[in-house]
Amino acid sequence: MARLAKDQGVSRVGNKSIEELTAQAEAFIELCYTELEKSEAEIEQRILEIRSEIHASGTYHHTQEELVHGARMAWRHNSRCIGRLFWHTLEVLDAREAKTEEQVAEELLQHLKQANNGGRIRPVITVFHSGEDAAQRIRIWNHQLVRYAGYPETANKSRSGDPVSDAFTRVCQQLGWQGTGGDFDVLPLVISIGDGQPRWFPIPRHLVQEVPLSHPEISRFPELQLRWYSVPIVSDMQLEIGGISYSAAPFNGWYMETEIGSRNLGDTGRYNRLPAVADLLGLDRSTNTSLWKDRALLELNRAVLYSFKQAGVSIVDHHTAADQFVRFQQQEEERGRQVSGRWSWLIPPMSPSATPIWHDRTIKELDLSPRFLYQKSAYAGWLKETDQQQGRDGVEKSEIDMQPVEMACPFHHKTDT
Amino acid sequence: MARLAKDQGVSRVGNKSIEELTAQAEAFIELCYTELEKSEAEIEQRILEIRSEIHASGTYHHTQEELVHGARMAWRHNSRCIGRLFWHTLEVLDAREAKTEEQVAEELLQHLKQANNGGRIRPVITVFHSGEDAAQRIRIWNHQLVRYAGYPETANKSRSGDPVSDAFTRVCQQLGWQGTGGDFDVLPLVISIGDGQPRWFPIPRHLVQEVPLSHPEISRFPELQLRWYSVPIVSDMQLEIGGISYSAAPFNGWYMETEIGSRNLGDTGRYNRLPAVADLLGLDRSTNTSLWKDRALLELNRAVLYSFKQAGVSIVDHHTAADQFVRFQQQEEERGRQVSGRWSWLIPPMSPSATPIWHDRTIKELDLSPRFLYQKSAYAGWLKETDQQQGRDGVEKSEIDMQPVEMACPFHHKTDT
Repeated sequence: MARLAKDQGVSRVGNKSIEELTAQAEAFIELCYTELEKSEAEIEQRILEIRSEIHASGTYHHTQEELVHGARMAWRHNSRCIGRLFWHTLEVLDAREAKTEEQVAEELLQHLKQANNGGRIRPVITVFHSGEDAAQRIRIWNHQLVRYAGYPETANKSRSGDPVSDAFTRVCQQLGWQGTGGDFDVLPLVISIGDGQPRWFPIPRHLVQEVPLSHPEISRFPELQLRWYSVPIVSDMQLEIGGISYSAAPFNGWYMETEIGSRNLGDTGRYNRLPAVADLLGLDRSTNTSLWKDRALLELNRAVLYSFKQAGVSIVDHHTAADQFVRFQQQEEERGRQVSGRWSWLIPPMSPSATPIWHDRTIKELDLSPRFLYQKSAYAGWLKETDQQQGRDGVEKSEIDMQPVEMACPFHHKTDT
Repeated sequence: MARLAKDQGVSRVGNKSIEELTAQAEAFIELCYTELEKSEAEIEQRILEIRSEIHASGTYHHTQEELVHGARMAWRHNSRCIGRLFWHTLEVLDAREAKTEEQVAEELLQHLKQANNGGRIRPVITVFHSGEDAAQRIRIWNHQLVRYAGYPETANKSRSGDPVSDAFTRVCQQLGWQGTGGDFDVLPLVISIGDGQPRWFPIPRHLVQEVPLSHPEISRFPELQLRWYSVPIVSDMQLEIGGISYSAAPFNGWYMETEIGSRNLGDTGRYNRLPAVADLLGLDRSTNTSLWKDRALLELNRAVLYSFKQAGVSIVDHHTAADQFVRFQQQEEERGRQVSGRWSWLIPPMSPSATPIWHDRTIKELDLSPRFLYQKSAYAGWLKETDQQQGRDGVEKSEIDMQPVEMACPFHHKTDT
C-alpha cells in the first residue's frame, strides 16, 4: 500500500510528524480491519479517508469500531498482564465527548458502576478524547479510581493508610479534601484539563464496594479489620492506538488474589500486615525458619479469596489465572499471533514455581501496538510548586517518579501501586 | 600497561588468539593482585612472567594463589547466586595434577567428604587441569556429583526417580551401571578424558549423607518416604579465570530449602509430590481456591528445614538467604564493586515478594570475569551414537540440550537441574 507523500502543509501534530502518524494509522487499520475480517477494499477506503483527514487537520479520529477493537488489542498486547484470555470481552465506553472536569468525573463514576456491576466485575475501559491540543488534554491524577489514602507518621500519630498513596493524598489535602486519617479512606477523583488547576470530586459512598476480610477457618480473622475495594481501575496510563494517544483511558479487570493478599496488604512498603496475621495465628516470629511470613501470606490470600467469594465479588486465584494465561498463549498461537510477555510481571508473587509461567522460557517482550504506556506523573510538578509556596520541603523526587514505573498490568498487575 | 606485541610465532591456543589470552590474563592479574593488595611492581613482574610463558608455550599456568582468588571471584560474580555473601570462604582444592579417570574420581570423592564435613557443609571447589590439549580435557558427565537416577514409565512400571536425570541415567545404564529402579538411587560418577570412552565409578554409600524428611508437627510426614542428599555439587560448568578455561571444576555451597522443597520435590517436572503432601494434610484438591498447592509447598519446605536441622546438616531458608544477599550487595558497594545479578534467578520460588530482592530494581547483569560458564553437554553426542548402535530412537535433542541452561547458580541455583 502506498505511503502518504511527504506533506509539508500540515507539518506536525504534537511531537509526531505527519508521516509518522500516517504510517502508524495505516499499520493499525490494516491490522485491526484484517482481524475484523473486513475486505481489502474497506481497508483501502478507510486509509484514504484517514489520509485526507490528517492532511486537512493534522490528526484523525477513530470510528467507534476502531476504538473498541483498538482498546481490546492494547489489552491483548500488554506484556505484563496475566489475565489476557478475556481481552475480547473488554467493554469500551466512548467518552470522547466529555469536555469539562464535571463531565469527566461523571463518566468515571459511570465506569465504576458498570465495572463493579454489583460484584460481578466486568472488564471496562473508558476512553476520553485524545487532546491533541494540549490545552484540552485530560489527565486523571489518581493512579486507580478507587484507592486508599496514606498518612505518614507525625509527631503524635503513627502512620496509617496505604504508604503508596502518601504523595497523592497530600495533593488531595492541598486541594481541600479531608480524610479521617484512618487506614481505609477512599480518595477523591482528581481531574485536570490542560494547564488548568485540578478539581476534585468525592466518590459517592454507595459506588465503592468494599470487602471486609474474614477467613474460612480462622474465626478471629476479622479482628485484624482488613478490607479491600472490589475493583482495580488503573487510571494514569496512556492508551495508544494507531498513532493517537489517549491520555485518559482508565481500565479495569478483576483482582487476582495475590495483588491484595501478597502485595497490597503484605508488602512491607504497603500495609505490612504479615506480622499481625502471624501473631493472630500464634506463629513463631523469632526465627525465619518457622516460615511465618509464608504462612501469614498464605492465610491472608485465602482470606481474600474466601471473603470476595462470600461477598459475591469476582476474583481469580493465581493458579487459575496462570492456567488461563497458558490458554491465552495457545489461543494466540492458533491464530498465528505472537504473545508479548514479561516474565517478571507474569509470575505471581506466591508459589510462582507451582505455575506453568515460571517454567516457560519462550516468554519475551515484543513491541506491539495498540498498547498501554506509562506517562509522566500528572502531579509531580504541581506538588513541588505547592509545597514550595507553602514553605514545605518539596516531596522527594523518587516518591513520585517511581509510581508510574511500579504500576504494571492493566488488569492483573504485579504491583498494585 | 603496555600490551603484548602481536606475536605470530605461537599463533593460537584453542579458539583463542595469543593476543586475546594475554589481554585476559593481564586484566585478571591486575584485578586479582589489586584485591590481594599486592604492589604495582609485583603486578608488572607477574605479567612479564605470564607474557613470556604464553610466548613460549601458547598458554600459562595460574599460581595457587591466583587459582584460589580467581575461583572465589567467579563465585562473587555469579549473577544467579543468592548466597554470595560467603564468596571469600570458598575452599579451593587444586587438583590440576590429576591425569587419569581414577585420579579424578578420587579427587571427587575427596571433595564430597570435605564439602559435607559431617553435615557442617563447607563451600568447596575442586579445580582440575585446564586441558588446553583437547586429548587431555577432563569432563565430568554428572550435572551434580550426587544426584538421583530417573526411570521413565515402561509398559509394566510407572515412572520413578528424578525425571531430570532420565537421560543421564540411561548413559549410566549403557555404561554398565545398574540401579534399583527406585526413587532415590544415587548415580555413579562418570568421567571422560579427551575423546576416550567415559568411565564410571560408584560413590561409596558412606560418602553420601542423606536426610529423610519429617515435619515438626505432621507426625505422618515420614510416610511420604521423601529424602534428599545433603550437598549440591554442580559439576558440569566451566570455570574461566584470566582467559584459561577449566572444563572440570565442581563446586558447592549449602542448600537453600526451596531448592529441595519447592523445586526438586515440588515441580511437576521433577518429583511432583505436592498432591501427595496435600492428601496427607487432608487439603481440598478439587479447587485451586483452597490454595492447596501453596499450603503443600509451605509444609514441604518446613519439613526440609526441620529435617536438615535435626540431622545437623547446614541449610538456609530463603528469607535469611535474601537478607544475606542484601548484605552482600552492601558489602560490595562499600568496596566500590558492582554486583552482577539476574533478578529472575535471585528471587526465591516461594513468597518472593516477601523478600527485599523482589523489590530491588537496581539488579542488572554485568559481564564480569572470572566466571562460571555453561558448556555443551558432555554426553549428548555419545548418547545419540550409542542409541543408534543399539537400534533405539535417539534421545530427543531437547531432552539433553536443555540441561545446561536449566542449571544456574553455583551455590543456590533457581533450578536444581
